[in-house]
Amino acid sequence: MAENDKLVIAGREFNSRLMVGTGKYANYQQMVQALEASGAEIITVAVRRVNISDRNKESLLDYIDTKKYTLLPNTAGCYTAEDAIRTCRLAREAGLSDFVKLEVLGDEKTLFPDNEELLKAAAVLVKDGFTVLPYTSDDPIVCKRLEDLGCAAVMPLGAPIGSGLGIRNPFNIQIIMESVKVPVIVDAGVGTASDAAIAMELGCDGVLMNTAIAGAQNPVAMAEAMNLAVRAGRLAYLSGRIPRKLYATASSPLAGLVA
Amino acid sequence: MAENDKLVIAGREFNSRLMVGTGKYANYQQMVQALEASGAEIITVAVRRVNISDRNKESLLDYIDTKKYTLLPNTAGCYTAEDAIRTCRLAREAGLSDFVKLEVLGDEKTLFPDNEELLKAAAVLVKDGFTVLPYTSDDPIVCKRLEDLGCAAVMPLGAPIGSGLGIRNPFNIQIIMESVKVPVIVDAGVGTASDAAIAMELGCDGVLMNTAIAGAQNPVAMAEAMNLAVRAGRLAYLSGRIPRKLYATASSPLAGLVA
Amino acid sequence: MAENDKLVIAGREFNSRLMVGTGKYANYQQMVQALEASGAEIITVAVRRVNISDRNKESLLDYIDTKKYTLLPNTAGCYTAEDAIRTCRLAREAGLSDFVKLEVLGDEKTLFPDNEELLKAAAVLVKDGFTVLPYTSDDPIVCKRLEDLGCAAVMPLGAPIGSGLGIRNPFNIQIIMESVKVPVIVDAGVGTASDAAIAMELGCDGVLMNTAIAGAQNPVAMAEAMNLAVRAGRLAYLSGRIPRKLYATASSPLAGLVA
Amino acid sequence: MAENDKLVIAGREFNSRLMVGTGKYANYQQMVQALEASGAEIITVAVRRVNISDRNKESLLDYIDTKKYTLLPNTAGCYTAEDAIRTCRLAREAGLSDFVKLEVLGDEKTLFPDNEELLKAAAVLVKDGFTVLPYTSDDPIVCKRLEDLGCAAVMPLGAPIGSGLGIRNPFNIQIIMESVKVPVIVDAGVGTASDAAIAMELGCDGVLMNTAIAGAQNPVAMAEAMNLAVRAGRLAYLSGRIPRKLYATASSPLAGLVA
Repeated sequence: MAENDKLVIAGREFNSRLMVGTGKYANYQQMVQALEASGAEIITVAVRRVNISDRNKESLLDYIDTKKYTLLPNTAGCYTAEDAIRTCRLAREAGLSDFVKLEVLGDEKTLFPDNEELLKAAAVLVKDGFTVLPYTSDDPIVCKRLEDLGCAAVMPLGAPIGSGLGIRNPFNIQIIMESVKVPVIVDAGVGTASDAAIAMELGCDGVLMNTAIAGAQNPVAMAEAMNLAVRAGRLAYLSGRIPRKLYATASSPLAGLVA
Repeated sequence: MAENDKLVIAGREFNSRLMVGTGKYANYQQMVQALEASGAEIITVAVRRVNISDRNKESLLDYIDTKKYTLLPNTAGCYTAEDAIRTCRLAREAGLSDFVKLEVLGDEKTLFPDNEELLKAAAVLVKDGFTVLPYTSDDPIVCKRLEDLGCAAVMPLGAPIGSGLGIRNPFNIQIIMESVKVPVIVDAGVGTASDAAIAMELGCDGVLMNTAIAGAQNPVAMAEAMNLAVRAGRLAYLSGRIPRKLYATASSPLAGLVA
Repeated sequence: MAENDKLVIAGREFNSRLMVGTGKYANYQQMVQALEASGAEIITVAVRRVNISDRNKESLLDYIDTKKYTLLPNTAGCYTAEDAIRTCRLAREAGLSDFVKLEVLGDEKTLFPDNEELLKAAAVLVKDGFTVLPYTSDDPIVCKRLEDLGCAAVMPLGAPIGSGLGIRNPFNIQIIMESVKVPVIVDAGVGTASDAAIAMELGCDGVLMNTAIAGAQNPVAMAEAMNLAVRAGRLAYLSGRIPRKLYATASSPLAGLVA
Repeated sequence: MAENDKLVIAGREFNSRLMVGTGKYANYQQMVQALEASGAEIITVAVRRVNISDRNKESLLDYIDTKKYTLLPNTAGCYTAEDAIRTCRLAREAGLSDFVKLEVLGDEKTLFPDNEELLKAAAVLVKDGFTVLPYTSDDPIVCKRLEDLGCAAVMPLGAPIGSGLGIRNPFNIQIIMESVKVPVIVDAGVGTASDAAIAMELGCDGVLMNTAIAGAQNPVAMAEAMNLAVRAGRLAYLSGRIPRKLYATASSPLAGLVA
């Protein structure tokens, strides 16, 4: 059943629905092992952390096999549309990728997205020919607008970056899935394996995470756990779960999310 | 990390922490495929459904490779201690096993356990030399008493049998784990993959399920999903998840279960 | 609408659906003010804390106007059926009441009920002519048995005594309400006003609490809050709430508890 | 304790923290009774439903005692900043009020706010001298910006308008309360009394609702329930609730929201 179940973003096919970040690891070796254990095919890297100007110095990219992984440069640390646009252009000039994970943050404390600036940046970048995957809040109106602007996917947060709270509002995620046709990828908030499984069971197309893996006591083992969890959740979604009932012989199922 | 992580019940070691039932499948072939996909090593069978008296007729057991799987006969359909005790003895006489999953049900509607009768039956069966794994409610006092009587594990329900509601009261499960030293196996209530992962993330030793797999639209795929989910949840538990916080830079973690 | 909405227990009518305890207050004066603010008509007192043998000494009862309140002696601190039965008989001999709140605790740590002993005690006390209101776990089978034994109500816990966790398993409370005809009173676990409102909105007949009020920073104000909350929850239950939907124009309601 | 606890918006004091709408009632008489039962002092009316141009015809306003209630005209039905701005100006010209509840909706299906347009409209209206109370999503960045623009309060949704789902993401509401100094009023999503109590227990300054009351089977009784619930929740918040613990003798409290 799972064999032909591909994630398709902007015409490109992926077998894994888990995307992972590259920050916060103890060292590059640990990062490499965690990437491997995660089974991810798409790896996001902060453009700011890649030494673009002087590639003679050691760089994160020296440790990532770009034949094996699809690089997804991101604009972490950008707080305005202008800054994010410039960062994407730099990444392209440095030959990183046309795929970008667009982040425009609203403040340093919560790392919530600034959707106003995000929409401005997305409009420009799509026109510039980028394949834009925007990190946004779980707001159906913003997600629809991002799709209308030509974004290749929408990436609503499950909870604040690094919070580990899981998907706090599955109802909004469900409404977003009703509202857009592009892939919906939960980005941020996952804390443990079941959070990732829940995202997939809701019908999301993928999950992106960083802190949940890199910040675990054993990041490599947690990366494997997430690998298994995303596959478990996706397979459960495809398998058609039993209805929820108060007890087995109850006459009517409990519809909707009972969370 | 997971290699040396064995489930030990009454001195016997198992690699899989998922136990599955054999009821409600469309046919034996589907059951066999689902058992295989689940990766389970312990398979529970209702003694009432095994044709013990006349083994010439077709039987569930003809389809289960007892070299590969550990059979766990259960007393499904018993509503009194007396009935459950007799059923276990019949199973032993027929050569099924000394391991028994003890169920004494309180009513036909909800299939909740009758803990009073359960305790009576457990006391007798332990003295009879059975290795008793009792299905019970999520009641720490009853679980402690079952352990004191000599049961090899306790199997509190996550939710009513066949309800698919997941673990409705993780707090009670956590108190049970504080209260007993024998393995705690969540039995009943799981509906989808994340439910199984959550049980393992709580620190439970295993999960037992039947309807969630057999009742899915694609039971074989759901069995695989559960296989992955139990491993994901266990691995996440062992990996040491990140703390929950309101946002990443919040000064204090949100302790406890934020469910 | 609320005028004719009476709580009826064993033929006696009450206007308030909130019952409160008398322990853990800073002093008797504070207790008296909190009782008053709560609007409760039924007040439970631990028989062990009433100086039955020597009524010349100061006693809790000196502070409670027994013309105004219905006293409900309880067996707090009893760990066996025998002890609880003896305590009830002492209370009756001392002229306290025939109404008793029956508690038989399973351990000192969690204060969970010991349902086995509870059932034994209930059987004896009902035959003795007591009006028995038993504190029990949220177990539908035990609740049904308590009703069958002749108890005048059942009082399942919402969460452990003093935990303040609210109703952890509204599903079980709902099944209990389906299972018995006597009043269902949530006893223990309430932490704040909304917890009490939720109990009433589920359709429970009443709520009993102590720590949530006595342990608050301002017990008298919290007593008033609980008074309002129980009335709010009951009135909301009677008023017929709107269905839950993903959004207002969604075609199908989200049935069941979305908690 | 509650006597001096006033809600202050733009320098004006209110005793009630419940604000109610005027739509969806069976008739004006029912509306009037529900308003009365709610105890609300601030009543929101859709400018579009008031017959501004021809005040000789029957109007909603003929039924509302504007000496008793503070009118809060709202821009329901506006989908652009321009439309909302024009609507507010019309309301002012007609003598309705300088206080406005600003709604700019993103679509007709979900009635989610369009925050981009909302921010534009808010900027203009504040400069125009209006006291602006904007309906927005539970987005801390947007709420902070609305405050910075000079809005007198922020009114994040608890759940979609008319959904009755309660506060789906109390974490976001909590972050919003950390982020802004103006009053935080939960607007939309409340379904029943406990939802309103929960909003107040979180520390919100007020709650605004319409469908939960007008759509109940008995709107007048539900209005009274909400009146009680808002007071209960506020009083519980002020009273200092007991900490959540796994059980009373547990050594550490369960911090954060255990929802």
